[in-house]
Amino acid sequence: MKKVHNFSAGPCILPQEVLKKASEAVVNFDDLNLSLIEISHRSKNVVAVMEKAQNLVRELLNVPANYEILFLQGGASLGFYTAALNYLSKDGKAVYVNTGTWAKKAIKEAKLVGNIEVVASSEDDGFKYIPKGFNIPADADFLHITTNNTIYGTQYPEIPKSPVPIIADMSSDIFSRPVNVSDYAMIYAGAQKNMGPAGTTLFIVNKDLLGKTGRTIPSMLDYQLHIDKESMYNTPPVFPIYVSMLTLDWLKNLGGVPAIEKINAEKAAAMYAEIDRNPLFVGYTAVEDRSKMNATFNLVDDTHKELFDSMWKEAGISGINGHRSVGGYRASMYNALPLESVQALVKVMQEFEEKVSVKA
Amino acid sequence: MKKVHNFSAGPCILPQEVLKKASEAVVNFDDLNLSLIEISHRSKNVVAVMEKAQNLVRELLNVPANYEILFLQGGASLGFYTAALNYLSKDGKAVYVNTGTWAKKAIKEAKLVGNIEVVASSEDDGFKYIPKGFNIPADADFLHITTNNTIYGTQYPEIPKSPVPIIADMSSDIFSRPVNVSDYAMIYAGAQKNMGPAGTTLFIVNKDLLGKTGRTIPSMLDYQLHIDKESMYNTPPVFPIYVSMLTLDWLKNLGGVPAIEKINAEKAAAMYAEIDRNPLFVGYTAVEDRSKMNATFNLVDDTHKELFDSMWKEAGISGINGHRSVGGYRASMYNALPLESVQALVKVMQEFEEKVSVKA
Ligand SMILES: Cc1ncc(COP(=O)(O)O)c(C=O)c1O
Ligand SMILES: Cc1ncc(COP(=O)(O)O)c(C=O)c1O
Ligand SMILES: [Mg+2]
Ligand SMILES: [Mg+2]
Ligand SMILES: [Mg+2]
Ligand SMILES: [Mg+2]
Repeated sequence: MKKVHNFSAGPCILPQEVLKKASEAVVNFDDLNLSLIEISHRSKNVVAVMEKAQNLVRELLNVPANYEILFLQGGASLGFYTAALNYLSKDGKAVYVNTGTWAKKAIKEAKLVGNIEVVASSEDDGFKYIPKGFNIPADADFLHITTNNTIYGTQYPEIPKSPVPIIADMSSDIFSRPVNVSDYAMIYAGAQKNMGPAGTTLFIVNKDLLGKTGRTIPSMLDYQLHIDKESMYNTPPVFPIYVSMLTLDWLKNLGGVPAIEKINAEKAAAMYAEIDRNPLFVGYTAVEDRSKMNATFNLVDDTHKELFDSMWKEAGISGINGHRSVGGYRASMYNALPLESVQALVKVMQEFEEKVSVKA
Repeated sequence: MKKVHNFSAGPCILPQEVLKKASEAVVNFDDLNLSLIEISHRSKNVVAVMEKAQNLVRELLNVPANYEILFLQGGASLGFYTAALNYLSKDGKAVYVNTGTWAKKAIKEAKLVGNIEVVASSEDDGFKYIPKGFNIPADADFLHITTNNTIYGTQYPEIPKSPVPIIADMSSDIFSRPVNVSDYAMIYAGAQKNMGPAGTTLFIVNKDLLGKTGRTIPSMLDYQLHIDKESMYNTPPVFPIYVSMLTLDWLKNLGGVPAIEKINAEKAAAMYAEIDRNPLFVGYTAVEDRSKMNATFNLVDDTHKELFDSMWKEAGISGINGHRSVGGYRASMYNALPLESVQALVKVMQEFEEKVSVKA
């Protein structure tokens, strides 16, 4: 079997040991002689999976006691809507920062709920940077940010100091660096980057700030109801939650968030060093706002595209085409991607440089 | 390995060959040397899974061209809300039949959307029967029914003749018997009974009746948007959809819905025959409305409960405790449950009768 270097932007690479355990559980789970996916979600074994997943999140991110941990359905995309539904009061307002495609969608859905003000945007320059020094009104219900912008490849180097609680879409950088959870009203993240497969979304919810909107919320969209039912109001997506639990357990055994943060810094440093050094490539974003998760870059001269594409494919590299809305290249370096894969890509970029210079 | 007879009410038994293939795909999918759960949902291999799943639904249920097939997140429980959101016009009304726990929840969520009238209910008699001969106003936007009542064990023996399109929650009997799709505005069903694992919900949506509500619908709740995006507006729950596709393929190879309908009839006949014959058991529901999916029954004399429970557990039978809200027993006999498992349960009921008569 040829080794594949999986740079997919999400769903993305998961640890091999997680995949192996998940595969086994699909035929025989917990030695029950039953599959994980054919038993009741109310069985003690599945309830134990849910609890373990919740406890791992609490431990890995030091989640305070006044926050609850939910694994829901609908993706971060449904989170765009429910965030406002649960935290924006009827007569209040919320402020948003527009840093790209996902932030825009968050804004669009929230506007269906109530009064939204966009206090900063980097749309003027192709979302190449993270706005800084913007004003956050102290009477807002919350500030919404997208900590890592998966498509454009930017990431908040620091979380803004905010006079109001923050709601953050951390879909593409959760568990990659420490988070001070008490700064947040809510954190949400689709599982399919650093946490597991597609099909469940993590919500870390400040309980004290719920129940203040003055509106009736449909059951499945109501965080308080999901809290009351311990994230099992209806049938949860058992398999995605199980694999997330395994992945979080893998991260814990590796040394947790501080350990992976170091590894991620190494990978990103190697990647960006080559983008900068190599005269054939240019980074897409402002240097200080570069994402450690998604490195976006372009060929200086697009006539070499065919050659470069054939070379990385030949080297077993997969998933580095840029998002269809942006083009270019994007190397996603999520938690489970080994440094070795980044080194393989760097090597191809160097060999490509040689080939081009020979031709020239 | 001891053979387990899996009567779980959902998530529930899936075909062994499906579990085996699903397990393999978690380590190596389509010979890509990548897991199904670590590649992009926009890759051609995953798009092919989605299309195959949709085509199988279309084929197995003879879905007409003016209907679209969606695999969404949120469970049937989110469907309770979105059904009304997408099909109930601002000034219109919808009529509902209350046949149990799930129907009541459908009513509750729909009432948040608009004008709902409950035209029939069997709550007066513990939901033991399916109301018949009720009046369906011709000016309603739709009639909502729950074709199989998983908890109480009733099932519509026939779908009511309706002057208005029907919306049906078929979570627990879809693909168990033929459906005349053109009678419906919409059919929805959580995957985790006859179709696959928890984590995706099937919607069969009449396109011609969409877009008439006069309200703005949030993106993730908007069937039309999901249709426009071919059920990939956001990251779909890839693994649950894949396993659903495998299960539908298994059903197709078995001879499709007519073939499984026969097998289901045999299983139900064997089960109910023993409940009726055996003096120690009594069925819960009206005979004419008995569900072929979930047989609910009680001990005539509860003092024998401990003995019976120890006997079926000893025989490798799993999952026949009644729902926590009803008690008693419930043998769920979904498509993938073999006749052999029903025969094993019947045998235990007979041995139990002998033991009790010896003691007496
Ligand atoms: C930052 C961010 N937010 C939201 C989403 C949408 O997530 P989902 O597909 O789970 O709705 C994505 C998906 O890639 C993302 O990267
Ligand atoms: C008939 C029926 N409707 C709805 C539901 C709820 O489905 P979900 O858990 O997918 O929301 C169930 C679950 O068992 C059911 O049996
Ligand atoms: Mg973006
Ligand atoms: Mg350069
Ligand atoms: Mg019911
Ligand atoms: Mg009897």
